[in-house]
Amino acid sequence: MADVVKIGLLGCGTVGGSLVGLIHKRRSAIEHTTGITLEIVKVAVRSASRERSCPLDPDTVTTDASQVVQDPSVDIVVEVIGGIEPARTLILDALAAGKPVVTANKELLANCGAELYAAADKAGVDLLFEASAAGAIPIVRPLRESLLAEDLSRVMGIVNGTTNFILSKMSLEGSSYGDALAEAQRLGYAERDPTADVEGFDAGAKAAIMAGIAFGARVVAGDVYHEGISQLTAADISFAKRLGYSIKLLAIAEKFGTADDGTSEIGVRVHPTMVPNDHPLASVNGSFNAVFVEGAASGELMFYGRGAGGDPTASAVLGDVVDAALNLRQGNYRRVPSGPKAKIRSIDQLESAFYLNVEVEDLPGVLSQVAGVIGGHGLSIESMEQHGTGSGARLVFITHAAAEHAMQGAIAELKKTSVVKGVAGFLRVLGE
Amino acid sequence: MADVVKIGLLGCGTVGGSLVGLIHKRRSAIEHTTGITLEIVKVAVRSASRERSCPLDPDTVTTDASQVVQDPSVDIVVEVIGGIEPARTLILDALAAGKPVVTANKELLANCGAELYAAADKAGVDLLFEASAAGAIPIVRPLRESLLAEDLSRVMGIVNGTTNFILSKMSLEGSSYGDALAEAQRLGYAERDPTADVEGFDAGAKAAIMAGIAFGARVVAGDVYHEGISQLTAADISFAKRLGYSIKLLAIAEKFGTADDGTSEIGVRVHPTMVPNDHPLASVNGSFNAVFVEGAASGELMFYGRGAGGDPTASAVLGDVVDAALNLRQGNYRRVPSGPKAKIRSIDQLESAFYLNVEVEDLPGVLSQVAGVIGGHGLSIESMEQHGTGSGARLVFITHAAAEHAMQGAIAELKKTSVVKGVAGFLRVLGE
Repeated sequence: MADVVKIGLLGCGTVGGSLVGLIHKRRSAIEHTTGITLEIVKVAVRSASRERSCPLDPDTVTTDASQVVQDPSVDIVVEVIGGIEPARTLILDALAAGKPVVTANKELLANCGAELYAAADKAGVDLLFEASAAGAIPIVRPLRESLLAEDLSRVMGIVNGTTNFILSKMSLEGSSYGDALAEAQRLGYAERDPTADVEGFDAGAKAAIMAGIAFGARVVAGDVYHEGISQLTAADISFAKRLGYSIKLLAIAEKFGTADDGTSEIGVRVHPTMVPNDHPLASVNGSFNAVFVEGAASGELMFYGRGAGGDPTASAVLGDVVDAALNLRQGNYRRVPSGPKAKIRSIDQLESAFYLNVEVEDLPGVLSQVAGVIGGHGLSIESMEQHGTGSGARLVFITHAAAEHAMQGAIAELKKTSVVKGVAGFLRVLGE
Repeated sequence: MADVVKIGLLGCGTVGGSLVGLIHKRRSAIEHTTGITLEIVKVAVRSASRERSCPLDPDTVTTDASQVVQDPSVDIVVEVIGGIEPARTLILDALAAGKPVVTANKELLANCGAELYAAADKAGVDLLFEASAAGAIPIVRPLRESLLAEDLSRVMGIVNGTTNFILSKMSLEGSSYGDALAEAQRLGYAERDPTADVEGFDAGAKAAIMAGIAFGARVVAGDVYHEGISQLTAADISFAKRLGYSIKLLAIAEKFGTADDGTSEIGVRVHPTMVPNDHPLASVNGSFNAVFVEGAASGELMFYGRGAGGDPTASAVLGDVVDAALNLRQGNYRRVPSGPKAKIRSIDQLESAFYLNVEVEDLPGVLSQVAGVIGGHGLSIESMEQHGTGSGARLVFITHAAAEHAMQGAIAELKKTSVVKGVAGFLRVLGE
């Protein structure tokens, strides 16, 4: 006789609808493997009259989300509404009622994660959120469990499919940013208002969640420096390509110092990055995502897959639901490793190698003058190319790693240098 | 006050030594995150007098492994001896005594997994073995937990670093098999007797473990068809390269049919495979490993990292130890999803696309005759090239996917065809 575990679902949009269909399809397999029968007993929707393609029992549908949380027959609450409120209150109420919660809500976790983790721990129930960081890619569970004892120094990844689709299109087909965005919108990979994706807010939220778990410290969305891809030109892409790099929007979380008591500094940022073509992240194309993890003993690890979409996201949610159901049957839960507020190292102090494309007058001594400005800010040059542009010359530098403030200082001074016509390109370069 | 969890370690070679060092280094971090203090209280070694670089308390060392298992103060047993006996008996004794076991022993699990899983389940304790399938790469836990509810159709990967190092060397530097193997031996990536690696036995054991977990059925090492890389020539590699493929030793586990009651057939094989260069597995080079997973809802996933080596393997073992310690504190364990003996589909019936390189007399009608033999066995040709070789001609075919027996029939008939001088190359090609 299988144990029945009753699910209350908050939200039935793309992910919720996929989840309903997936539970229907996989019910007998899950019973067979775990002895647990999943049953959706209550579903909160915005509009009860909307036609849905998923097999939803009309008797379970309500437009009053609090009914789902308060229903004593609900064993596990699944939240796929998104946004901060009412999701936050509903989840806190569910946890306070002793119900495990599964959520895919990156915005909420990146802003109120610590509050939710504490509430789950206080109630002694699971709060699982695999789908919030990289869709179908198992990364939260490996970080929480497999790598719990690892000394992780850096977690970085391509965690936004929209921007990766656009950048792949620009790189592989030579499209302009505008055309690539328009095609992403046509294919449903980008929203009509693409700001959250293209300006790096979505990737920033995911970076905050992963940084928090990887480094056991409290990191919120506001701690993340972010720059998007809307300023990138086809020329940037083609220069990077010629130099042996692919431009990716990377979310990078780094830990400085090895102290385990929360005194290490943490840097979290999202920006377009030149990734050397022999790095595994360089060949992650289209709408795929990947997270690259560096540990002292494990070495380099990478997790690759679909970061968005109804079915992939629902797959990750369902994995969490089964986990929560198994734990519930055993009267058990898994605490989120959570520490004090992280000491954030600001972008000014974070280090990268840099790519700099400077347009100059074609006059004797110009290279020496420009190189002098760069060196004067403590930046050391790894490689350099000069090309005639007809009306002048273009100097392309790749520097060794240095602090952001040094490069910004050099750029500011270059802009005031008379032989410099302009800084036509500036990008961070992924280094060791 | 932290809970002390006492570890008994069976074996203190490369992995065991790394683990002792790693626990020493990470003890306070683990305490900080979990409230658990790990203490190694007993270590079984072959030679008590051997010098060791790891910080081992001499009072804990014994040459009698049964003492470790029987010691009532030992909470968790870690087995890193390798091989079937005495590891099997020691693990069964530990489980029977109610002690969770962490093991990295692929040979044992691939041969006696079902017996061990059943013993762990009967005792109600954890049997964790992340390090047995792909070293530091978290793949066992994602398959057991994150993807437990997924309908997985195929799990395949590069799971042997020695052969991947040799193949990368042959491909990137044009080395011969013999030279590449010699360098792998010089660098310590290959054993003096490299048979287990180069003939695919090691990869086969890992494939059996992953197939069993992914498909919830009992798969043993003897179920795995395997072919190694020792017959590959520099010519095979360079032909593959020119056609846009990389040759990788892939372990491939496939499920045929979607039944969840154990009636699906399973195919498990290891052989050199031509992987299209745009496939994520193609760019996994050197001693790195990667496992590619295909699920109905999740889509394609890949897990990449170090598949061997003391520290990476110890990292995976330590992750399991912490997991077991947390579960032990909660009086909890996680059952290995295990089903009946798998119905194995034999290699004859398994499908691939094929690469075939046929040397022929340069006579009129030869192409038609050779193509006729291939077509007569039900193989359909996807692409074909003909080149003069001076004394004759070379015909290179890539076929669409077909059953192995069809291709073997065609090869047998070609060898008896008078205009055919020989089959100079034959490889399976990775398809959809």
